Amino acid sequence: MPGMLSLAGGLPAPDLFPAEELAAVVDEVMRDSARAALQYGPVAGVPAMRECIADRAGETGAPTEPGQVLITSGSQQGLDLLARALLAAGDRVVLDDPSYLGAVQTFRAAHAELVPIPGDEDGMDTEVLAARLRRGTRCRLVYVVPHFHNPTGGVLGPERRRHLAQLAEHYGFLIVEDDPYADLAFDGARLPSVDRHTDRVVRLLSLSKTLCPGFRVAGLRGSPELIGTLAAVKQNADLQTNTFGQHVLSRLLLRPRFLPRHLSRLRRHYHARARRLAGLLTDRLPWLAFQMPRGGLFFWCTITSGVDATELWRACVASGVAVVPGPPFCVERDGTANLRLSYATLTEEEATEAVDRLAVTHAGLTGSRGAAG
Amino acid sequence: MPGMLSLAGGLPAPDLFPAEELAAVVDEVMRDSARAALQYGPVAGVPAMRECIADRAGETGAPTEPGQVLITSGSQQGLDLLARALLAAGDRVVLDDPSYLGAVQTFRAAHAELVPIPGDEDGMDTEVLAARLRRGTRCRLVYVVPHFHNPTGGVLGPERRRHLAQLAEHYGFLIVEDDPYADLAFDGARLPSVDRHTDRVVRLLSLSKTLCPGFRVAGLRGSPELIGTLAAVKQNADLQTNTFGQHVLSRLLLRPRFLPRHLSRLRRHYHARARRLAGLLTDRLPWLAFQMPRGGLFFWCTITSGVDATELWRACVASGVAVVPGPPFCVERDGTANLRLSYATLTEEEATEAVDRLAVTHAGLTGSRGAAG
Repeated sequence: MPGMLSLAGGLPAPDLFPAEELAAVVDEVMRDSARAALQYGPVAGVPAMRECIADRAGETGAPTEPGQVLITSGSQQGLDLLARALLAAGDRVVLDDPSYLGAVQTFRAAHAELVPIPGDEDGMDTEVLAARLRRGTRCRLVYVVPHFHNPTGGVLGPERRRHLAQLAEHYGFLIVEDDPYADLAFDGARLPSVDRHTDRVVRLLSLSKTLCPGFRVAGLRGSPELIGTLAAVKQNADLQTNTFGQHVLSRLLLRPRFLPRHLSRLRRHYHARARRLAGLLTDRLPWLAFQMPRGGLFFWCTITSGVDATELWRACVASGVAVVPGPPFCVERDGTANLRLSYATLTEEEATEAVDRLAVTHAGLTGSRGAAG
Repeated sequence: MPGMLSLAGGLPAPDLFPAEELAAVVDEVMRDSARAALQYGPVAGVPAMRECIADRAGETGAPTEPGQVLITSGSQQGLDLLARALLAAGDRVVLDDPSYLGAVQTFRAAHAELVPIPGDEDGMDTEVLAARLRRGTRCRLVYVVPHFHNPTGGVLGPERRRHLAQLAEHYGFLIVEDDPYADLAFDGARLPSVDRHTDRVVRLLSLSKTLCPGFRVAGLRGSPELIGTLAAVKQNADLQTNTFGQHVLSRLLLRPRFLPRHLSRLRRHYHARARRLAGLLTDRLPWLAFQMPRGGLFFWCTITSGVDATELWRACVASGVAVVPGPPFCVERDGTANLRLSYATLTEEEATEAVDRLAVTHAGLTGSRGAAG
């Protein structure tokens, strides 16, 4: 919508895409290997891309061979393939409450029964999960976003990672570790993947927030048997992930010293933008409580004035500022006092104006409420 | 496999990709619109790409608005989305016998009941279909590859197109018109799409054989309602087709005079390669009957010596030449006397050597049979 300022999106900042380096590798691909990059490729992925993802998976979790990697058309496809291959109607899927909407929708579309587990800034409360399992709840998958959870920003703590791994071994479920924001830790410190503690993990390694989303190339790490099963489903789904994007991104990741430099720049800028939005919220919106995030793209906020999040969202749209209210992320929990705000894409001027519009919109709602009461 | 010569693949010829023009538009995209091309995009497709496909659909069939187009991650995804959105277990799908293997697998994965209909060089015998429908067979989808059918090379004739459209109107099924080879008519004459005759058509517009397969960008034409339904399934499946490929291919298709020139070059070269293979087969393999194809990528051949196609295929692999035997394409029909040969990718020298190996392999089988008998 023209003039709309968005604190709503889950989009990464386009000014932080490694555009110069990408232009160089795109040029290399067209010069050196156009015929291969423009042709069909293997179902499970171009070998160089599988190797890059295997290396990245090994650096951040358990040692990984290329045969343990499937290249998917974004991590959303990874979720969909898992649901198609592993879930029958009525199977139980444990997940945080609130959770990433795309995952909730995929599991619902598979007619799974959702088992929401509450959490806090240290992620899913594994004691609550353990109690549910002890009381006889059986589940097939446990879905977690372990770094800078969308929407809450929580980070699954080291103890809980170990505990979750133990529960997976004991009760025989598979952990789906969807970790797109891990590279965006402001202090650069990411925790080791849960697959360090158990084999019962499928990890989704997105590049959308780390490099850029436009090629729709992601990796999925699992056992070679599971990769074979998922590849058969993928062949029916879309034959293969686009060859060109795999050639480009594998070349980019193989550039010496590219990734650490790029990630360091990314973290510095996102941290600055998060601090800036935190300052604006603190100064201008005293009715909004939040914790300063440690990474990722989002502030998960609580409205302390009693205004309903969905009502505020509607009024905000009319005032030219987009936010996301809590309820769509929630399974059982009440999200009517929550807002998710992204600090990724707005300039300083735009962020200031967006927060101004939020302040005025909120004042309008509380004013009219006061007048009506 | 090193040294293996392939008459088996369904791959287009990489030396005929428009590599120079693609390098130019890739460069333009990185220069003019990198941020948009590297970012997330709309579920149903980038507007310019939807417009290009709508224009192309209108030129070759019924007038088409961009709202009637969904951009898919290749036409294989189009098939998969249709199966997911429209088929319940046990629903009947009518198709040619033999048929494209990817479609057969997708419909089988959806637990559809396959209803194979015989055909000839004019495609599916719609009189046989009409008789089945009159006797009470109800079906949800009828799947056709109307130009240069894979594997038979048949072209659904004008009368049969009209007849099929009438049957769709009368019996209420949907025609899935999968038309990847239409642009490869050696004489440049393609028949109008079946959607000229009825609205009850979903058309899959692949660019893999026309431009190149490596971007995995295709179009699907249907009613705006169906596009909405399929877009909801696509959002769960992979969010969207890669943005970069859509930017590149829409720019390529918008280049003035590019497409007619490119297609003319493509047809000229494929026609020459087909004539060359026809000459080799006629000269060297008197035990193989075939019709000279009018377009597409394949020869559908009949083994007249009594050698079993699967046995020949196995022996060929051992001799360093790949072919495809008939049975995998067949639903009910016997394909044990058939071979599918592609003329697309081998050089003159390679094609000669491949046919030599086929001749020697076949002689080995008939010789040993003679000796054993």
